[in-house]
Amino acid sequence: MEQVEDFNWHKGMTVKQLVKAYGQIGYQSVELARAADVIVKMKKDSAKIFLTFTSNMVTSGLRGFFAQIIKLKMADVLVTTVGGIEEDIMKSKGEKFAIGNFETDDIELHEKGINRVGNLLIKNESYMNFEDLINPILMKLYEKKNKWAVSDFLKEIGLMLDDKDSILFQAARNNVPIFCPAITDGAFGFHLYLFQQKHKDFIIDVIEDFGNILLATNFDEKKGVIALGGSISKHHAILSTLLNGGANYAVYMTTAHKTSGSMSGATTSEAKSWGKVQCESDIATVIGDVTIMFPLAMIMALEQLSDEGLLNG
Amino acid sequence: MEQVEDFNWHKGMTVKQLVKAYGQIGYQSVELARAADVIVKMKKDSAKIFLTFTSNMVTSGLRGFFAQIIKLKMADVLVTTVGGIEEDIMKSKGEKFAIGNFETDDIELHEKGINRVGNLLIKNESYMNFEDLINPILMKLYEKKNKWAVSDFLKEIGLMLDDKDSILFQAARNNVPIFCPAITDGAFGFHLYLFQQKHKDFIIDVIEDFGNILLATNFDEKKGVIALGGSISKHHAILSTLLNGGANYAVYMTTAHKTSGSMSGATTSEAKSWGKVQCESDIATVIGDVTIMFPLAMIMALEQLSDEGLLNG
Amino acid sequence: MEQVEDFNWHKGMTVKQLVKAYGQIGYQSVELARAADVIVKMKKDSAKIFLTFTSNMVTSGLRGFFAQIIKLKMADVLVTTVGGIEEDIMKSKGEKFAIGNFETDDIELHEKGINRVGNLLIKNESYMNFEDLINPILMKLYEKKNKWAVSDFLKEIGLMLDDKDSILFQAARNNVPIFCPAITDGAFGFHLYLFQQKHKDFIIDVIEDFGNILLATNFDEKKGVIALGGSISKHHAILSTLLNGGANYAVYMTTAHKTSGSMSGATTSEAKSWGKVQCESDIATVIGDVTIMFPLAMIMALEQLSDEGLLNG
Amino acid sequence: MEQVEDFNWHKGMTVKQLVKAYGQIGYQSVELARAADVIVKMKKDSAKIFLTFTSNMVTSGLRGFFAQIIKLKMADVLVTTVGGIEEDIMKSKGEKFAIGNFETDDIELHEKGINRVGNLLIKNESYMNFEDLINPILMKLYEKKNKWAVSDFLKEIGLMLDDKDSILFQAARNNVPIFCPAITDGAFGFHLYLFQQKHKDFIIDVIEDFGNILLATNFDEKKGVIALGGSISKHHAILSTLLNGGANYAVYMTTAHKTSGSMSGATTSEAKSWGKVQCESDIATVIGDVTIMFPLAMIMALEQLSDEGLLNG
Repeated sequence: MEQVEDFNWHKGMTVKQLVKAYGQIGYQSVELARAADVIVKMKKDSAKIFLTFTSNMVTSGLRGFFAQIIKLKMADVLVTTVGGIEEDIMKSKGEKFAIGNFETDDIELHEKGINRVGNLLIKNESYMNFEDLINPILMKLYEKKNKWAVSDFLKEIGLMLDDKDSILFQAARNNVPIFCPAITDGAFGFHLYLFQQKHKDFIIDVIEDFGNILLATNFDEKKGVIALGGSISKHHAILSTLLNGGANYAVYMTTAHKTSGSMSGATTSEAKSWGKVQCESDIATVIGDVTIMFPLAMIMALEQLSDEGLLNG
Repeated sequence: MEQVEDFNWHKGMTVKQLVKAYGQIGYQSVELARAADVIVKMKKDSAKIFLTFTSNMVTSGLRGFFAQIIKLKMADVLVTTVGGIEEDIMKSKGEKFAIGNFETDDIELHEKGINRVGNLLIKNESYMNFEDLINPILMKLYEKKNKWAVSDFLKEIGLMLDDKDSILFQAARNNVPIFCPAITDGAFGFHLYLFQQKHKDFIIDVIEDFGNILLATNFDEKKGVIALGGSISKHHAILSTLLNGGANYAVYMTTAHKTSGSMSGATTSEAKSWGKVQCESDIATVIGDVTIMFPLAMIMALEQLSDEGLLNG
Repeated sequence: MEQVEDFNWHKGMTVKQLVKAYGQIGYQSVELARAADVIVKMKKDSAKIFLTFTSNMVTSGLRGFFAQIIKLKMADVLVTTVGGIEEDIMKSKGEKFAIGNFETDDIELHEKGINRVGNLLIKNESYMNFEDLINPILMKLYEKKNKWAVSDFLKEIGLMLDDKDSILFQAARNNVPIFCPAITDGAFGFHLYLFQQKHKDFIIDVIEDFGNILLATNFDEKKGVIALGGSISKHHAILSTLLNGGANYAVYMTTAHKTSGSMSGATTSEAKSWGKVQCESDIATVIGDVTIMFPLAMIMALEQLSDEGLLNG
Repeated sequence: MEQVEDFNWHKGMTVKQLVKAYGQIGYQSVELARAADVIVKMKKDSAKIFLTFTSNMVTSGLRGFFAQIIKLKMADVLVTTVGGIEEDIMKSKGEKFAIGNFETDDIELHEKGINRVGNLLIKNESYMNFEDLINPILMKLYEKKNKWAVSDFLKEIGLMLDDKDSILFQAARNNVPIFCPAITDGAFGFHLYLFQQKHKDFIIDVIEDFGNILLATNFDEKKGVIALGGSISKHHAILSTLLNGGANYAVYMTTAHKTSGSMSGATTSEAKSWGKVQCESDIATVIGDVTIMFPLAMIMALEQLSDEGLLNG
């Protein structure tokens, strides 16, 4: 059995050295080091990696990191919510989000045309620019065909972008499909609706896309899930791996607890009752803010894989 | 300013008496009493009430309460996730879910064909029975037409059921639309997919349904949101009220905190930065498990409205 | 195995009816109903009941309920923090605390001489009145003897009070000792310090009081712990029951989760590794705000015991 | 206003580079970077730094880091709970704690004589060895004098130890007093009790120690508080700085939320209503597991201070 070790800092300490030390500190630091190990294991085992995240993470600076991870071949399938799609596109066109405070006068913000997501701020203007931007895109895609599966549609948009820090851009170029099971649940939905009003035969086929995520992997492949936050993103990835025999590896990072029976707080252990995760060493649940936890665990994994010459991209 | 009052029990105490006392105990008990007040206010002001909940609440015994609330005309629009739809249908056909433990041997459960949701248990068998059940329904609806908006589709299913404790049953009979922005994110999605494989022109039109929720209310109407838990259910209701000028009343109940910037933890205050909620007295955020909090607040509101002869149904 | 049942409201519903229904709703509502059962069991088994709470609960209106519970012989030993002692004394002398908001301008409050505890407010004036009050009490007790164990000291103060809603008053009259392992950690500590400056031989003997809590129960007696919130109150009760062979019954209610390894979040299951709790049916951990949860569970237990003629006081 | 920036990893990334990037990612990562800034500010302003932590952090590998921080002159006053004192002494005598799991069979652990603290494990044997160790120490100190203030007592014990990773050792050698307002709330209390049974005039004077913490700083000095976790450790430091005019700087790190009105979850903003914290830039509240958060923020501060030649020790 491993032992707790006294932690000591030395000048110039790297993230890799810190996360290694975390493995012998205790509580969530131990779980975080386990998460890094599980990510390394899923990569070494050539598992197909499902990475899921919620839109507030795309609001944050993790967006560029997700793009980099795709480029580094550390994600094979993405699942997210439509807010994340919208904001990735906005940012790829130069929109900037600001850093504010959790405690703030929201009525004052509203009067200034500023929307708050925790301690981050998005201008109304950014949404208006998005509107101007999305309509020609919709027209261009409609001209190609009138019925689209969501992930095919998002791939086409990705191909139109030109920003190495964009999730859609990198996903399109690296053949990583992006699934978004509730494509209408955002400003995007509103624009799709207005477009359909003018083009009655325009259809987004969500059932077809269910087939796409189902066929994105199969029973024989090893499968890993990295679920950041909860929501349908997490559920959709687990559902599709379950229908293909269950994930072999799983890392959950969330602030939600299991005590309310929610999907967001559901543990990797609960997942075993539903499907197949092979053993304790292949799963990790880390409780904490993803903006801090995920870079730590993923950097550790990237450093290890890089040291062993196993990192592509 | 109101004062803290010493709480004392007396034999036979009613829920109404307790929730009234909560208003002068402190912390979340005060917020809970405020939530009951806001619900009463939205009803008295003839606001259109959007009630949202996540599927795990339908797994629980809240399902029958939601059905009753619809019957009592306390909800005008529902938004939920597809798991809740599935389980409501299962239960309306006699499936029973069991009460277990949060701490349990999940591998053992899996071997017995039992799936766990927190401390509740669902048999694989229930899903198999659902499969047998849903296919003839899909065929019947397909025979009517090949393209369906989600809420129209769910209404038709509701009309086929015969269970007063069913959400779909009561919603269909009381003209309360049920929106489900990610209709494929569950076993239902899998069955829709298999059906579409055989009937290629079968379409679920999610964009059309975005129009339906948008038109379910309008700028001139008063609007209230009761959001239980987070997820896209909550977001979708807020989005559609926002696009119609913002909610006038809002009650959020959740275990999530605002500190991670997630939608689940987003407060009613944050909502003000995005749209319009009029003043402090019209909103309440209660932190806690919905299975305990919601009955308390809603019963208080029902008792008050009933006392004043304002309860229909 | 018990089954989930659809919950339905009827007019005039009592707390007892609601908590009974909770047992078949799900998630924390089930745990809450279990907690009520465990309280009934510990009483029926004539266990010595240790009730612990933190000072913020005495700030709230639970204070009067704790006093009532002592009077009803539902608590045999109390453990709390010194803030609770101070505020119980303040309230017994007529000080009133107000209900405010969690989100507030704290600098403005400070300028008005108002201190905030969550959404409750205490005037500086109340602390000043406490100062005027406590000094003659200290002098009176010092004149009796110069060295005091904490619980003896608190009993004497209780005997000087005249307020049926006071914890100290009821505890003193019902021979329920109050332990407070960090008696100096509050305004009380400051006044003790100033008093000792003038009376150098004045001593509070905390070691002697450790003996008192140790001897408050013994190996042969049945023991139950109801721990509300975390902190040293909870720890001290568990420690003293552990040294006497472990508790037979335990109910924990808290908002803290076990994931950080803190005492506040430590579960009844973890408690088993340290000592002795006999079986699953004798313990319950409920996650949620104590101001809502505790009245529900305790009222249910009181109603049941009263129905069976087992309630004294 | 600062902007969100896309995060990108590069090989060999240091902790300093990561925490700098955190400042522009979002949510708690931003608050963490702020915490590092506040620590740097309090040091540069020659504030007297109060560092508080709970005993479970001493169970973890943070123990050695706390010792190092004392050595580096980054803490002037410590406040903790007695479990931390016990475990620091155990570890300084070579006891090893093991790393386990949060989900575990606690009855099995109990049978093996193993106690669990979250995912960390302590053998009963370690407590027995502590017993053998502490008794001669108590006798030696009693022979010096029969009445001790807690912090003086702990300093003497620190001088008897010989382990650079020991908190008591470093504190004693660097004239950093350790306050422990509930010295009896642990195994230590039991041994003190047994000792007092044999030596009736042996006294631990907690009131005298309240004077010591009060005089550990004064109105004219700048004061900073770094509170890790909640509990009386946090409260005691805030109380003593409050009585000296309020802290000028404050960093709170905790998993507790403010919504239950507990001390553990009380924010730095709430602290302003009670006393004096000067402005937003001087405070930070970070929500998350201390074993991960604290090393990140403190390493960032140490690197910056070291770069500027401001780090002693």
